[in-house]
Amino acid sequence: MSSLFIISAPSGAGKTSLIKALLKTRMGLSLSISHTTRQPRPNEINGQDYFFIDRDIFNQMLERGEFLESAEVYGNLYGTSYPWVKDTMASGQDVLMEIDCQGAQQVRQIFPEAVSIFILPPSLESLKARLQQRGQDDPGTIARRLKAVREEVSQVNKFDYAVINNELDEALKDICCIIRAERLRMMHQLVKQHVLLAQFA
Amino acid sequence: MSSLFIISAPSGAGKTSLIKALLKTRMGLSLSISHTTRQPRPNEINGQDYFFIDRDIFNQMLERGEFLESAEVYGNLYGTSYPWVKDTMASGQDVLMEIDCQGAQQVRQIFPEAVSIFILPPSLESLKARLQQRGQDDPGTIARRLKAVREEVSQVNKFDYAVINNELDEALKDICCIIRAERLRMMHQLVKQHVLLAQFA
Repeated sequence: MSSLFIISAPSGAGKTSLIKALLKTRMGLSLSISHTTRQPRPNEINGQDYFFIDRDIFNQMLERGEFLESAEVYGNLYGTSYPWVKDTMASGQDVLMEIDCQGAQQVRQIFPEAVSIFILPPSLESLKARLQQRGQDDPGTIARRLKAVREEVSQVNKFDYAVINNELDEALKDICCIIRAERLRMMHQLVKQHVLLAQFA
Repeated sequence: MSSLFIISAPSGAGKTSLIKALLKTRMGLSLSISHTTRQPRPNEINGQDYFFIDRDIFNQMLERGEFLESAEVYGNLYGTSYPWVKDTMASGQDVLMEIDCQGAQQVRQIFPEAVSIFILPPSLESLKARLQQRGQDDPGTIARRLKAVREEVSQVNKFDYAVINNELDEALKDICCIIRAERLRMMHQLVKQHVLLAQFA
C-alpha cells in the first residue's frame, strides 16, 4: 500500500531547495511533475521541472478528467496528472507531490489518506528577504505574492504536519522523519508485515 | 501541549534494551515508572525499574483512583501513577510509558491522543530464542509467556505504529522518527508556532 505525500509552502519558504535535497536522499519517492501553462523560468527544463503546455492542451486534459487537481495561480494554470499518480502508486511506489494549498485540498478529497506537510519560513522577514533576493519579480509582483502568502498560511491548519525551514538540514530531517514514521503506521505495517504477523496467529 | 508515548511489546521482543537506548538519546522524554507487586529481578532497582510495593498498598492506591491504568499479569499487579503523568505533562514534558497491551488500551481511553507504538520481534523463532536465552524462567513459564505473546500480538492493530526490532539501531531510529514526526503534527505546531503564525495573520 503506497503513500502519497503532499508538500505545500508559500512562495519564499524555500520549498524548491528542500524538495531537491529530499530527492537526493534515499527515501524512495517518485516526484509528481505538474503540467503548467506558465512560461518556463531561466534554467527550468520541460519534463523535469514542469510539463510546459499551452492552454488548449491543458483544457483538453481537464475535460478528459486527467487532472487530480488543477488551479489557476497568478493567471497560469497548473495541474497534476491523475493517471500518472494512480499508476505509480499501483506499482508500489510512494508519490511526492509539490503543490499549492488549493491543490492540496483537492487531492485530499480524492486521497483522504494523503499525508500533507506545510513548510513555513522561520519568519515573515526571512520570507520577504527571499522573495526580494530572488530578483526575478518586480515590486508589484512581490506585493501580490506576499498577499497570496498570507492567504496560504491561513490554510496551514488543514495540513497534517508543519515544518519550519529555518536550517535546511534540520527541515530535511523533519520531512524524512515524517515519511519514515508514516511508513510505520499500523495500516501500512499490517500489510507489509503480514507474513511476520501470521507466525503469531 | 505535551505528548504521551506508549510503547508495548510482547515478552522477548527486546523492548527493555530499546527503551534504555531511547532514554540515552536527547529526545527529552520522561519515563513513567510503574508500580508493581511482583518481586524484583536480580539487578532491578526500586524507584528506577519499578516502584515495588505490596498488594495492600497497591489496592489502597487503586481505591483512591491513583492509577491511570492497572493490570494483573502472571499473578502480579502493575499500575501507572495518574497524578505523576498529569503533573509531568502539565509541566510541558513528553511522557514515555512502557506498558502492556491491556494497559495501553486503558490509557487510550483517558488520553485518546496518546501515541502508541507496538514493538515486534523479527520472527517467532527469534522471540523464542530470546525467551530461552534469558534463562530466568522455567519451560512452563516460557510456554505460558508464548501463549501471552500470541494474545498480545493479536492486539497489534489497536496501536498507531508497529516497529520491527530486527536491528536495535534501526528500531531506535524508527522510534525517534515517530516521536520527532508526532511533535511536528499540526495540533502541536499551531500551539508551538503561534508567534510565527501570527506574523502572517
